[in-house]
Amino acid sequence: MSSRFDRISSETAYEGRFISVRNDRFRMEDGEEVDREIVGHPGAVAVVVHDDENLWLVRQPREPVGVPDLLELPAGKLDEEGEDPVETAKRELAEEIGKAAGRWEHLKTYWNSPGFSDEEIHLYLATELRDVQKPEVDEDERIDIVIWPLADLDGLIDAISDGKTLVGLLELRRRRP
Amino acid sequence: MSSRFDRISSETAYEGRFISVRNDRFRMEDGEEVDREIVGHPGAVAVVVHDDENLWLVRQPREPVGVPDLLELPAGKLDEEGEDPVETAKRELAEEIGKAAGRWEHLKTYWNSPGFSDEEIHLYLATELRDVQKPEVDEDERIDIVIWPLADLDGLIDAISDGKTLVGLLELRRRRP
Repeated sequence: MSSRFDRISSETAYEGRFISVRNDRFRMEDGEEVDREIVGHPGAVAVVVHDDENLWLVRQPREPVGVPDLLELPAGKLDEEGEDPVETAKRELAEEIGKAAGRWEHLKTYWNSPGFSDEEIHLYLATELRDVQKPEVDEDERIDIVIWPLADLDGLIDAISDGKTLVGLLELRRRRP
Repeated sequence: MSSRFDRISSETAYEGRFISVRNDRFRMEDGEEVDREIVGHPGAVAVVVHDDENLWLVRQPREPVGVPDLLELPAGKLDEEGEDPVETAKRELAEEIGKAAGRWEHLKTYWNSPGFSDEEIHLYLATELRDVQKPEVDEDERIDIVIWPLADLDGLIDAISDGKTLVGLLELRRRRP
């Protein structure tokens, strides 16, 4: 069974630098009306990166959760209007790791918090790496590169407490022989 | 390396029914100050549920992402102040599936969107199931129960496009012999 619905009103309650909050009302197919508080987000990409021997990750401060050194996949918001997500992923791989990849595979696209946000995450696997010049970026990011042996993928998964990184690494593990 | 920081100011920009938005300023250990837009969220639990033969899931409309029938783990927000997350998980299992579990295992606790939200998700595995009376709830939820053969865990994972459900099922797969 499915429960279809139509949006009958939408009110912007907050408009920020990259997120917004809407209060929307929906009419369900049984006629009932429900209110939903929705965080609007541009979406994001994250990349599982390895060279057959090591995985390449980043460690960075995450002020929203009070963690000075969270270990994550290279990732970034879809902030270029209309850009294909894999192109955003290629930019992030160059900016954060200083690599380009000869092979790109789509791993999964999913809703990160479908109960209250429209954020969609696109996960890719990047392999056949080569070095590139890191482009200059003006963001106030403090990113360290972390290299982890692919042979210890389970140890890495145990060390992760970021959602998209868990999905990416667990999906890599599922696909490996 | 880590980059420690102190919160030096916090301004509530939006206060909603269950989320809020703050504009916080942090001083990093190198002295630079950065601004962060942060969605405050009470946190959530989600439960991988099986009886050794079948997995028990829910299908429900998710208005924020425009999907009438998203397949997910039973889950819920931590909306009782001070409640242990596993107690919230037990309530959700009774309310959404009509089951209690003889065995509870913690699978993972992680940050769902550490770049812009403090949402933490607690994942559990519930087994040794028995039927219980579904408590009355007054929420406007339209939840159908979905039963999926445990032997087709990979087929289920392929069908999922919800973040917490992916982490839970992929972690279950990693732990199974």
